[in-house]
Amino acid sequence: MGKKKIAIVLSGCGVYDGTEIHEAVMTMLAVVKHGAECEFFAPDMMQHHVINHLTGKEMNEKRNVLIESARIARGKVKPLSEFNANEVDALIFPGGFGAAKNLSTFAFDGANCKVIPDVEKAIKSMVFAQKPIGALCIAPTILAKIIGDNVELTVGSSEKPILAVNQMGAKHRKVTDHSTVIVDSRYKIVSAPCYMLDADIAQISLAANAVIFTIMEMIK
Amino acid sequence: MGKKKIAIVLSGCGVYDGTEIHEAVMTMLAVVKHGAECEFFAPDMMQHHVINHLTGKEMNEKRNVLIESARIARGKVKPLSEFNANEVDALIFPGGFGAAKNLSTFAFDGANCKVIPDVEKAIKSMVFAQKPIGALCIAPTILAKIIGDNVELTVGSSEKPILAVNQMGAKHRKVTDHSTVIVDSRYKIVSAPCYMLDADIAQISLAANAVIFTIMEMIK
Repeated sequence: MGKKKIAIVLSGCGVYDGTEIHEAVMTMLAVVKHGAECEFFAPDMMQHHVINHLTGKEMNEKRNVLIESARIARGKVKPLSEFNANEVDALIFPGGFGAAKNLSTFAFDGANCKVIPDVEKAIKSMVFAQKPIGALCIAPTILAKIIGDNVELTVGSSEKPILAVNQMGAKHRKVTDHSTVIVDSRYKIVSAPCYMLDADIAQISLAANAVIFTIMEMIK
Repeated sequence: MGKKKIAIVLSGCGVYDGTEIHEAVMTMLAVVKHGAECEFFAPDMMQHHVINHLTGKEMNEKRNVLIESARIARGKVKPLSEFNANEVDALIFPGGFGAAKNLSTFAFDGANCKVIPDVEKAIKSMVFAQKPIGALCIAPTILAKIIGDNVELTVGSSEKPILAVNQMGAKHRKVTDHSTVIVDSRYKIVSAPCYMLDADIAQISLAANAVIFTIMEMIK
């Protein structure tokens, strides 16, 4: 039997305008340690903007989400339009503002956000195939928007994102530590707050491991 | 007693034109797991070039090493010109072509490479203070150039970089597995090949852990 395939959706490279790098890399490590393999996807589109990560200010530049995501994936990333739920065992969304600025407009529109069609399609096809989806940090907001239906998930313990998650029709479960994951067994959704809480990188590793362990149990 | 401080020198964000992201993140994880803390430095200079990590081709863009390094460090990175050996316990150079294109010209000039002054100064001040330096992947070439004097180190098992390391006056020790580190006890240099060998991310984690464990033993 071949290795289980875990698809990871990237949204750029850097916490303020793309994928949170530590969350993505710790997810990769957890996947490989659990004997599975990663496959990377990212939308082939321009980033909402480019943030200078030193100052937090917007830069007068344009960058492409797929091309920047390739930095984390060392080149091996496919356009999200090619994602096929039949070819993978699980789907993971690491966090970072890319999830809320590129994959969706949650950072700007909160509960009224839009999710890009390729992400919506990927999520719906996984749900239809009854395969698990993991989401870290701010990324569970996307699942709240697309699935709704009282799906249980967490974005940590901050009031504003919790309110928005509930407004989108999901059922938020407050989490204040890094080793707790929230599992929705109807939809096979596994979420953890990661950097939505204060965290060091060892705690991110712990959370990514907990998410991947839970998902590996679901697909074994 | 406070935590040990491990300085990490970044050279951008992405294997082909900056720091190899996995090596940097696994180094951070190893540092935190060993009860120490990371402090990040990078030179405030333009990258040699910008590589599209999807295609491997050069892009018509300019990026700053310090600003791009802040993506890995989540903003907390200082100009390398502010590095002070008195304030840290050890210094680490992760790999990636940034070490050989931005911190030095090794990618272009091999044994005849130049190393930028801030890197040379940081290395010499650590050697003078008798504090350890770790280097992963291609980064030991910089130590070969600056220290020479038959310093023992490894860049893995490929003929060309090995030859260049020896030409620069270091003594190369061939390594073909990921858990072996080479220690030069005269100069307190600890090196490991990481992605200079074929590797998956769990093997990078293993190597980073081995380097940091060895260094923590030296400074305890």
